[in-house]
Amino acid sequence: MSYKIKQIAALLELEYQGDGHHLLEKVANRETAGGDALVFVESGDPGELESLAAGCIIAPRDIAPAKKNVIFSPQPKLDFARASTYLYPRPVGHGMRHPTALASMNAEIEEDVELGPFTVVEAGAKIGKGCILHAGVVIGGGCRLGRECIFYPGVVLYPGAQIGDRVILHAGVVIGGDGFGYVSDGQRQLKFPQIGSVVLEDDVEVGCNTTIDRGSLGTTRICAGAKIDNLVQIAHNVEIGKNVVVASQTGISGSTIIEDDAVIGGQVGFGDHARVQKGAVIGSKAGVLPGKIVRSGNVYWGVPVRPLREYKRLNAYFGKLPEMKAEIDTLKKEVACLKNALRKEKP
Amino acid sequence: MSYKIKQIAALLELEYQGDGHHLLEKVANRETAGGDALVFVESGDPGELESLAAGCIIAPRDIAPAKKNVIFSPQPKLDFARASTYLYPRPVGHGMRHPTALASMNAEIEEDVELGPFTVVEAGAKIGKGCILHAGVVIGGGCRLGRECIFYPGVVLYPGAQIGDRVILHAGVVIGGDGFGYVSDGQRQLKFPQIGSVVLEDDVEVGCNTTIDRGSLGTTRICAGAKIDNLVQIAHNVEIGKNVVVASQTGISGSTIIEDDAVIGGQVGFGDHARVQKGAVIGSKAGVLPGKIVRSGNVYWGVPVRPLREYKRLNAYFGKLPEMKAEIDTLKKEVACLKNALRKEKP
Amino acid sequence: MSYKIKQIAALLELEYQGDGHHLLEKVANRETAGGDALVFVESGDPGELESLAAGCIIAPRDIAPAKKNVIFSPQPKLDFARASTYLYPRPVGHGMRHPTALASMNAEIEEDVELGPFTVVEAGAKIGKGCILHAGVVIGGGCRLGRECIFYPGVVLYPGAQIGDRVILHAGVVIGGDGFGYVSDGQRQLKFPQIGSVVLEDDVEVGCNTTIDRGSLGTTRICAGAKIDNLVQIAHNVEIGKNVVVASQTGISGSTIIEDDAVIGGQVGFGDHARVQKGAVIGSKAGVLPGKIVRSGNVYWGVPVRPLREYKRLNAYFGKLPEMKAEIDTLKKEVACLKNALRKEKP
Repeated sequence: MSYKIKQIAALLELEYQGDGHHLLEKVANRETAGGDALVFVESGDPGELESLAAGCIIAPRDIAPAKKNVIFSPQPKLDFARASTYLYPRPVGHGMRHPTALASMNAEIEEDVELGPFTVVEAGAKIGKGCILHAGVVIGGGCRLGRECIFYPGVVLYPGAQIGDRVILHAGVVIGGDGFGYVSDGQRQLKFPQIGSVVLEDDVEVGCNTTIDRGSLGTTRICAGAKIDNLVQIAHNVEIGKNVVVASQTGISGSTIIEDDAVIGGQVGFGDHARVQKGAVIGSKAGVLPGKIVRSGNVYWGVPVRPLREYKRLNAYFGKLPEMKAEIDTLKKEVACLKNALRKEKP
Repeated sequence: MSYKIKQIAALLELEYQGDGHHLLEKVANRETAGGDALVFVESGDPGELESLAAGCIIAPRDIAPAKKNVIFSPQPKLDFARASTYLYPRPVGHGMRHPTALASMNAEIEEDVELGPFTVVEAGAKIGKGCILHAGVVIGGGCRLGRECIFYPGVVLYPGAQIGDRVILHAGVVIGGDGFGYVSDGQRQLKFPQIGSVVLEDDVEVGCNTTIDRGSLGTTRICAGAKIDNLVQIAHNVEIGKNVVVASQTGISGSTIIEDDAVIGGQVGFGDHARVQKGAVIGSKAGVLPGKIVRSGNVYWGVPVRPLREYKRLNAYFGKLPEMKAEIDTLKKEVACLKNALRKEKP
Repeated sequence: MSYKIKQIAALLELEYQGDGHHLLEKVANRETAGGDALVFVESGDPGELESLAAGCIIAPRDIAPAKKNVIFSPQPKLDFARASTYLYPRPVGHGMRHPTALASMNAEIEEDVELGPFTVVEAGAKIGKGCILHAGVVIGGGCRLGRECIFYPGVVLYPGAQIGDRVILHAGVVIGGDGFGYVSDGQRQLKFPQIGSVVLEDDVEVGCNTTIDRGSLGTTRICAGAKIDNLVQIAHNVEIGKNVVVASQTGISGSTIIEDDAVIGGQVGFGDHARVQKGAVIGSKAGVLPGKIVRSGNVYWGVPVRPLREYKRLNAYFGKLPEMKAEIDTLKKEVACLKNALRKEKP
């Protein structure tokens, strides 16, 4: 989609300088931007920015180069992302059904839904307006999808998954697999029933090859606006709050709750029945013990997690261990000397 | 499937109280159970349990509420899992073949095998009675499947994989990929041959998007009853013993052996040629060095793994590092004072 | 493919002893090798090796058993890998197109390309000579593949991915998914544009279910000869140098650069904008902080990474913490005694 600079500025409710009729076709970074591209700059020297080849710059007013087209923004990265949503409008289905797409006669699929080649929609599934299912997507029986969802190739929904509006599932995502629960009878591992449900609310996005299991008896829930990266594992009965961000390869064990707005780094591990309070931030590779409560209002690191300040402090001491040991050894010698000296003094 | 309480009790060989003719249709948790549901309770107050809406409770006799239908069990969770296997009988194939399923004329497929849409069975493969292959499953040439296996959508078996009876592979599982082995010739990485085999014995269950590589020259083996969670990596020539449990995102490097009944947490990493002895338990996020032997009869944590008691002890000391450093500093001052004092005393 | 021993020896430019006309059909390990198999031995006793059942041994001259067929090699494992490339020649496409394969009329596909069942090649894609796409592979619009690539079942290329010659992608690999980038507007996470490109150069091999995201505005690049294991995560704008080796379950955050010939263990985590210099080696489970530069010429371990020698040293001290604490306590007592003694002495 192309827009004039004045149109983009109006949509963003921002002021601009320069040629408002100049046409923008895409966004780019500073290195590759041509005359049809919008870029953003957060800091720098106006003189230096003058040489940018971009068609338009989103930048704070005080660093705006005088001779360039500039949209003034106090938060350029955010407004650049907002502008991108106009230049790259989210695709919606227009009813294309590939002849190889298989949809059960007992599925309710809105007319404009797009079904790619070799897609499968099983009986009782319900797919809302404007959804796009790319090649090879499998929608199990009784699943519900809201409007304008996009599922990339190879996504699998086990039967009964409940999906909100505008949910994006990237290639290879599996929703609703059996949770990992067994009871040993002393001889072998007996499967604990995994018959619960899984709900992804509106505007959730899930990265490639991530797996989100159904509840065992209850529900696994990913709340509205949560964003999950690639290769993340979310176990049975987990609850992920609104707008939570979970980076790649993190694993969240059964029944753990991550409250709204929390930010979780990559490769973090959560034991079961843990709770992360609203807005807490957990650094990459951290480990949260089963049942642990991670309090709001702080950043946490380490295994097991500690407040970042404490983690850094302990880590600094860890690096000083050899020095500490040397100090102890010196003290031992000195004390021995002192004892000796004292003994000699005594008559 | 529905059962009368007296039928379930008889199948479990347990005694019950209440209305034996009451019909149970499902299992549930305490929060959502209705009159058709079976729940289990391990502890609690009989008076309080009286208010449960469930149709029947599996509970120890001493906490059984007097006015409810109760099946008496000393191990309610286990008997609840056992009851579930009756209420939710394992699906078996009844010969449905989707018209889009592709099976080589040179594959031997038992009559009752169920082939979902867009499944592929290559030449020389052999599929036993009652197996169910869901949509998009690919069975490579020469693979062998026992009876009543269930493969969820998108499972891929590389050629030659050997699968036992009642094996469950969840969506996106890949069995028999090439191991990760290269030899550098000083210029580039040359592929070491990855031509070995991979065997999954009876009753193995593997979680979504987990990958199990074939042996390089030998065999990768997952023994009977082992349960593997989502997103686990099992490398070439690994051996996983009977009834071993491996939680999500754990990675096991080449030629490592996990003996029977071991329990492995999530995000654990194993170097190559390590060995975990029978029944050992390894906590989440632990790291096992190459060649390390982890002994039976203990629980291990940490990187590198240590017995849990030692790990906890060291971790406690780690938290006291600042205090220890302060103590050393105090000692240094005191010793300096003492030296000084002694020096002064000397005439 | 079968070869005479003298042929293999000639191809490897190595000398041999024994029956040069003996036919080799395969490679094997010492335990399972029969008369048609080639094995390699790096060390051992010639007398003991005499009992090997293998048809031919690649071994250093000084341990060659006198009565066996032996190809002499100073680096047997490497020459064994080289020999394997003759006995197991890399498959190339011969133009088989499964009738269910879907290729856009606007895709350019060389005649000898092999398309498996249920493959999808979208408009504008270009596939070079001799490529093999196994069942269910999806090639997005505008992708470019060089010659003789092999994509195993279920591989997904998002639109626009650029792939070199002889690239091997194992089952479930996803190339070009959206990077994980959001900007919070205080209320919700807004998607940062993920419209960049992804390039895999010649001879790259990628393990099962690994995910490599496209650049956000720039390019994600995997350079020639790099080898990536299963379940690895490579984020937007990452650059992986030539011949780099990355083991399983490692995660590399946005814009991080791994220079040529580096070796990265399993389950390593990289923060964003880090840099690993040429040839550095990073041990499994290590953690590299955002922005960190890891220098050439060393092996690194730990979280955060330290040179291996330092890591080992600190770890040894860590194990001695209880002892250190005890020493401090003893010193405290002794110093108290000394103080006491000194006080008493004073008149």
